[in-house]
Amino acid sequence: MSRVRVHSFTISLDGFGAGPRQDLQNPLGVNGPELMDWFFHTRIWREMQGLDGGETGVDNRMAERGFENIGAWILGRNMFGPVRGPWPDDSWKGWWGDDPPYHVPTFVLTHHARPSLPMAGKTTFHFVTGGIEEALALARDAAPGKDVRIGGGVATLRQYLNARLIDELVLAVRPVLLGAGEPLFADLDLRALGYACAESVAGERATHVVIRRQ
Amino acid sequence: MSRVRVHSFTISLDGFGAGPRQDLQNPLGVNGPELMDWFFHTRIWREMQGLDGGETGVDNRMAERGFENIGAWILGRNMFGPVRGPWPDDSWKGWWGDDPPYHVPTFVLTHHARPSLPMAGKTTFHFVTGGIEEALALARDAAPGKDVRIGGGVATLRQYLNARLIDELVLAVRPVLLGAGEPLFADLDLRALGYACAESVAGERATHVVIRRQ
Repeated sequence: MSRVRVHSFTISLDGFGAGPRQDLQNPLGVNGPELMDWFFHTRIWREMQGLDGGETGVDNRMAERGFENIGAWILGRNMFGPVRGPWPDDSWKGWWGDDPPYHVPTFVLTHHARPSLPMAGKTTFHFVTGGIEEALALARDAAPGKDVRIGGGVATLRQYLNARLIDELVLAVRPVLLGAGEPLFADLDLRALGYACAESVAGERATHVVIRRQ
Repeated sequence: MSRVRVHSFTISLDGFGAGPRQDLQNPLGVNGPELMDWFFHTRIWREMQGLDGGETGVDNRMAERGFENIGAWILGRNMFGPVRGPWPDDSWKGWWGDDPPYHVPTFVLTHHARPSLPMAGKTTFHFVTGGIEEALALARDAAPGKDVRIGGGVATLRQYLNARLIDELVLAVRPVLLGAGEPLFADLDLRALGYACAESVAGERATHVVIRRQ
């Protein structure tokens, strides 16, 4: 069966996976970009933006790992956009413009139904109202022979971890203090859930820790 | 004025500075020794136990930094021992035997008065009932021209951080999941308190992050 993987999910030293008060101006929450200030320097991130250059060290290699053998993605509603509650219309199409960086079927968790949304570059957003298990079943069906990557955000990861549905979680730990935001680990006993750290790799701007379900 | 420093204080990936249920058998709490499994491999730790050998890499160098120019220590009651409430007698003399690894005046925070306790190797334990500021004033007086090191544990660090009394906090982050225990950062907004990460150094078994008050 395909594996369920999380990659390049970044937390601050004090354990926040996003800053507070996410909105249209702050997709990662206030001060959230400080979390991702390792990814922005990598060659793979620059390629995704259509830019040349970028670094090719450990951080880049760890980011690249996250795109290997992925047949479908799952995103939480807040990772897809700042809209809350029922969709006012179909105008919001994600943070990423016409050609999102997924290029495979991408399932968005929401409480509010919406027609599927085909985008350029083979990304199609499907909106799933039946919860995390339904989204995972649909993603697996859409990814024969490949793995499913869960993008985030924090609330989505916590749900999947609590249900023990994630096989491998590769965190990037940034040496920054956010002080406030969305904590990944609070009241989530990953050890009791059967998870353990399998590997730790020092990157240029983050420490990458591989967590696996035992 | 002398600086107030914390060194080699270790947290798990999920943010715990000690395991749960500290007692005589578990000085670091249940699973707590997994936190310190970087320090136990260093030459300086082995020297402190009267043993030869040990590793001399980054982890050892970061541990050694913590002993340079220290004129006094401050310890929380739980770091001094498992006894709770009033001292039943004066028989408990710390976890460390007759010759503790401090070798300077060492101030123990407690709600229960007790006579000072001179030990071998120039360590004297003084018991302070007036709170963290009194302990710091006494430690500074006892350490002319040198710095004060706060050993821990979690509750003691949190009190001193909340009061903005720590100048430099060097954490060791271990890639282990404790799942439960004493969280260092919970509801402690170090960013709002004026702290920031200044440096991150990859060691052999831990990532060392230097946090400074701005």
